[in-house]
Amino acid sequence: MEDLHRILNADSVAVIGASRDETKRGYQAVATLKKSGFEGGIYPVNPRERRVLGLRCYADVEEIKEPVDLALITTPASTVPGLLAQCGRKGIAGAVIIAGGFGEMGPQGKRLEDEILETARAHKVRLVGPNTSGIINMWTGLNLVGLSNVPKGDIALLTQSGNIALHLITEATLRSHKGFSYYVGVGNESDIHFDEYLEFFRRDDKTKAILIYVEGLRDGRTFLQQVYKTSRQKPIILLKSGRTSTGQKSAGSHTGALAGISEVARTSFERAGIINIEHPDQLFPVAETLSSLPHIRNRKVAILADGGGHATIASDLLTDLGLEIPTLSERSQAKLREILPHNASVSNPVDVAGGSDANPEIFARCARIILNDANVGGLLIAGLFGGYAIRFAEKLRFLEEDAAHQMGKLVQRSGKPIVLQSLYNSVKPHSLELLRYYGIPVYESLDIATRCVGALSRYGQYISAYKYKTTFEFNWGAKAKKKAVKLIHNARAEGRRYLFEHEAKEILRSHGAPAMREHLAKTADDAVRLAEEIGGAVVLKIVSPDILHKSDAGGVRLNLENEDQIRNAFHRIIDNAREYKPDAVIKGCLVASMKKKGVEVIIGTKIDRQFGPVVMFGIGGILVEVVRDVSFRVLPLSRTAASRMIDEIKSAPILNGFRGSPALDKQALSQLLLTVSEVVESYPDIQEMDLNPVIVHDQGIDIADARMILKKEPVVPKG
Amino acid sequence: MEDLHRILNADSVAVIGASRDETKRGYQAVATLKKSGFEGGIYPVNPRERRVLGLRCYADVEEIKEPVDLALITTPASTVPGLLAQCGRKGIAGAVIIAGGFGEMGPQGKRLEDEILETARAHKVRLVGPNTSGIINMWTGLNLVGLSNVPKGDIALLTQSGNIALHLITEATLRSHKGFSYYVGVGNESDIHFDEYLEFFRRDDKTKAILIYVEGLRDGRTFLQQVYKTSRQKPIILLKSGRTSTGQKSAGSHTGALAGISEVARTSFERAGIINIEHPDQLFPVAETLSSLPHIRNRKVAILADGGGHATIASDLLTDLGLEIPTLSERSQAKLREILPHNASVSNPVDVAGGSDANPEIFARCARIILNDANVGGLLIAGLFGGYAIRFAEKLRFLEEDAAHQMGKLVQRSGKPIVLQSLYNSVKPHSLELLRYYGIPVYESLDIATRCVGALSRYGQYISAYKYKTTFEFNWGAKAKKKAVKLIHNARAEGRRYLFEHEAKEILRSHGAPAMREHLAKTADDAVRLAEEIGGAVVLKIVSPDILHKSDAGGVRLNLENEDQIRNAFHRIIDNAREYKPDAVIKGCLVASMKKKGVEVIIGTKIDRQFGPVVMFGIGGILVEVVRDVSFRVLPLSRTAASRMIDEIKSAPILNGFRGSPALDKQALSQLLLTVSEVVESYPDIQEMDLNPVIVHDQGIDIADARMILKKEPVVPKG
Repeated sequence: MEDLHRILNADSVAVIGASRDETKRGYQAVATLKKSGFEGGIYPVNPRERRVLGLRCYADVEEIKEPVDLALITTPASTVPGLLAQCGRKGIAGAVIIAGGFGEMGPQGKRLEDEILETARAHKVRLVGPNTSGIINMWTGLNLVGLSNVPKGDIALLTQSGNIALHLITEATLRSHKGFSYYVGVGNESDIHFDEYLEFFRRDDKTKAILIYVEGLRDGRTFLQQVYKTSRQKPIILLKSGRTSTGQKSAGSHTGALAGISEVARTSFERAGIINIEHPDQLFPVAETLSSLPHIRNRKVAILADGGGHATIASDLLTDLGLEIPTLSERSQAKLREILPHNASVSNPVDVAGGSDANPEIFARCARIILNDANVGGLLIAGLFGGYAIRFAEKLRFLEEDAAHQMGKLVQRSGKPIVLQSLYNSVKPHSLELLRYYGIPVYESLDIATRCVGALSRYGQYISAYKYKTTFEFNWGAKAKKKAVKLIHNARAEGRRYLFEHEAKEILRSHGAPAMREHLAKTADDAVRLAEEIGGAVVLKIVSPDILHKSDAGGVRLNLENEDQIRNAFHRIIDNAREYKPDAVIKGCLVASMKKKGVEVIIGTKIDRQFGPVVMFGIGGILVEVVRDVSFRVLPLSRTAASRMIDEIKSAPILNGFRGSPALDKQALSQLLLTVSEVVESYPDIQEMDLNPVIVHDQGIDIADARMILKKEPVVPKG
Repeated sequence: MEDLHRILNADSVAVIGASRDETKRGYQAVATLKKSGFEGGIYPVNPRERRVLGLRCYADVEEIKEPVDLALITTPASTVPGLLAQCGRKGIAGAVIIAGGFGEMGPQGKRLEDEILETARAHKVRLVGPNTSGIINMWTGLNLVGLSNVPKGDIALLTQSGNIALHLITEATLRSHKGFSYYVGVGNESDIHFDEYLEFFRRDDKTKAILIYVEGLRDGRTFLQQVYKTSRQKPIILLKSGRTSTGQKSAGSHTGALAGISEVARTSFERAGIINIEHPDQLFPVAETLSSLPHIRNRKVAILADGGGHATIASDLLTDLGLEIPTLSERSQAKLREILPHNASVSNPVDVAGGSDANPEIFARCARIILNDANVGGLLIAGLFGGYAIRFAEKLRFLEEDAAHQMGKLVQRSGKPIVLQSLYNSVKPHSLELLRYYGIPVYESLDIATRCVGALSRYGQYISAYKYKTTFEFNWGAKAKKKAVKLIHNARAEGRRYLFEHEAKEILRSHGAPAMREHLAKTADDAVRLAEEIGGAVVLKIVSPDILHKSDAGGVRLNLENEDQIRNAFHRIIDNAREYKPDAVIKGCLVASMKKKGVEVIIGTKIDRQFGPVVMFGIGGILVEVVRDVSFRVLPLSRTAASRMIDEIKSAPILNGFRGSPALDKQALSQLLLTVSEVVESYPDIQEMDLNPVIVHDQGIDIADARMILKKEPVVPKG
């Protein structure tokens, strides 16, 4: 953090590659710093120049006498390692590396990137980039991007594309009152990753919201942990591109980052409180809205319009976003009827039906009635407001302005937001400027206005559920059981990278999971005795380190009810196994109770490249295998996440009691998901776990089969 | 059509309710007509005025000596019936009724609406509206909407909301070179429906594209038939609001129309060639694009960008829209490499990587290479083009303009479209004006630009598949079989509104469908004899007009293999039925072969309120009942639609041979869907049909059970 502070609030900058040639980045950098009113030290560095823009130019950074916080390196990739060593010797905290030609350019570039990172670490210099557009601190004028006219404000911008940033800055300038506190082009994230910048912005009191454009994350889990800490205090609005395979291909050639499973990314971003955006048009407006307005405490919003078309489209779009448009209370409706014409709709959406044509101040009165309704968490106003003076009569301008003042104060007093869509936004009427002054954003687009309302509600829901959320942190090994550690150790000792079914179940049972009891019978006599202990019909299954697919080897016999059947089955299984694989080591047969009827579900875990351990859930058979009706979560799970991932699959109604059959034990299932989460956390050695099937009964569940695969190398738990 | 011609190309208009009060619609109407340069006769009508805006004012329309084509009625709802009678006597072809207070205001308003329709029909006056914003003919200045400054052009606008129209017109004015040929506010569609206007626009040679905003259709099927005839010649771009239940509630209070099943509407709109829009931001841009550019003949497009972020987001968005971003040919890549820097991406997306910074004319050269690639059907250019003079150096302006000329001609020559996204669009640089002059639309939004590219491809695919499309027309009864007609007649004669299973199957078989053969056995002897004829194991099922759910009544016995079993089963079924319902009329038992194994699917038909007969398909059991994995189509089906509706369900892979089982007979299934379509077309008496289950084998299929329900009243087939 100290490093980042010295970088982003640098008091002095060396511009390496400074130039007198106006077309060069090294000229623009010095010019922009001067133009942006940066009051710290600016030290051009270039052995071939004496002065640049009136400033003394140094041969190298070590020649500078004064202390230097930050270096901007504008020279080609190949020069960077040597320069970083000099920066280190000079005691410079960080270097912003503009050049491309690193990891994004294939293996050779990757080697160069590794080299600069090594050099930087050896010399204790932190790196921004490489392949970055630069950084800006809007409050000190530290502008290393070469963009002027960036509006100042409270949104921090963290971006992996200079052009997207340019897009957002242009939008902010043209169509809002908002601006930026910092700009960081993260580039290839070689050294400093998204999470460190995020932590800086979390602590920075000039920043109220954080806007992120990301193509690929180097370390998804650390990012999520930092997001979790930040999002409650400051909304984080993020667009992740490279969601699709073609998008990933494009992102790969752009930043060299690996794009992960988009489904896992999406759900975990949302769990961590991120407002996730897929359409670039929405990115800045949602950031503007979330940094300006109180959030919506529920899913319930009202629509106030001066035309049926806008009201109807807004209803569709808000419903698509998961919001409700509740009917207003009788009291609210009666009050609206008093001030609106008889043909107005007053239930919600409220359509003033010409009631505002002669007096747009009516909007403020309606807004007050609507926001006073306890059922309503926020309001969208859609239509012509702001244009009544243009559309009807010039004098209406003053009534619109009066309405704007009233609505602005109403938002402050009620703590409920208003978002306004106006057909006349681009004409820039004063009434709309006034609304913005009060923090009420105005959009010409109904798509964008509704999306902003949706984001206010989404964020409100996150805040209210915050205390039930996971931190995304693992306490590796803390809850490990001795017996289980020993089983894993034994498997390693035997050279196995997997656990036998009975071992996997033993581990699960040691954490309280209802794995079906099974015992290893080495002889037919053993099997008969164990079956008697278990009681009822049993199943026998071959145990051999050399046979993974038991059924294929004729190694499973079901529904064995008496001694003869059991003996007979035991011998047949052993014979089949020998025939299937003559050199197989055969340990015996598992004896287990026949499973009761129920619905078969599947729970699996694996290690995602970007996010670490993740869990999958689905209902067995065609629903998982053909329809791909599954849910994913990054581990660990909270109690809420566990029950959500059960309910969000499309086939969930099967578990709720389908066609008159009783409801199944979703609580036990949810508990099992939490146990699976705990098991993964306890044994970092586990690479994959597969509980397939788990039988869900109306009361209780049974893990009928379990498989665990270990990582290539043993892992020592760390906190 | 003659009527509509006299209305939309009226030579003379009576303005009923003309006024000298500037705030009145009756004043604005006369003023707008004069201002719009309308050269026909304008006849103000108001018994209380002598002159309005310098024109003689008449007491009523019958006082006017000259012939009058059209009346604009601006007076309240209650005055309309009397006025229509006068219009009829005067020989006026049509009346545009502005007033609200009809069907959209509940039952009382509905009665008034019925009354004006009756009066209009009696007096041979056609109605536009009521509750309409009016109509405009941009070519004659016939402007009855009260909007001035509407841009003239080749897009016809058909709208159910005045404010949405105002929105579209404002957008056209601010951000395009395009304009409108006609404007029609359809209002409540009391008399003239969407389809008649559509037919007019199809024949109108000033109109090149048709833009529709609809909340609810009065007659979906006639609309689809008209769309089918039109969309091949002129693209139709449509936003249907009231898609969601809250949207429907809002639309209901707005136009009084019934919103239909949105899924059926969506798929049938697309089958008829409509470009269906859900987001209002896209509505005008897509119309602009489709009316300006050649369509894309395949799904393959290229992206050319001057920044990785835009390229990556565009890839995601185009992929979401179902487009492919094919790798360019080796030859194209080599040519691009010749003109771009070494770090540029040349495979597709093409990222110039700074290669255009000093010379934006490079865009035109890249575009030529890319559009010459046989694999590419169209091009999206994204980023800063148009702003190089602003961002880099003023003199680059001329190079951008040169590039714009080249790209405009390239589109004309190649017949492949270019859509451009520019961050600098709102600055209105001349180069972007030039592009628009050549018909290349420019958008600031990447969301919108990509959606336009998607629409060009969607429309191109429709055009290329046009000859395989249904016309949505029924030839009712043309293929009816005598035997089947008799069965329906008999059921009616017996007072039944349904057919017995064996009757329904008989009808299906008479059209060649593979309904399992079953025979009615009145006695146990019959049953034994019939079983011998069939051969193999059989099933017996009760036949009684009083027992619909056979299994519940103990009326089904499976797997009967010999005479004893059959006799025994027959008696038990009859006994069970008598016990279940003592007064049931029992006709006997059906004897049928035991069905072979296979996958059970469900086919059902019903009559949709808006679109008439529709068919549903799904795989039986939880996939239909819980996951709701079904597909819908409006009937009749084309061969393509039949096979698409099988393939588009999520569980379709089950039919393709799942887990090593053989692929099932999708061709026979597709044929059965066509037969079902033919059966519905043959017997307009059928209200609902339910084939459940149909067993699909690896070779052939069997309809195991069939049910048909008849309409309340017999229907006489009409063509």
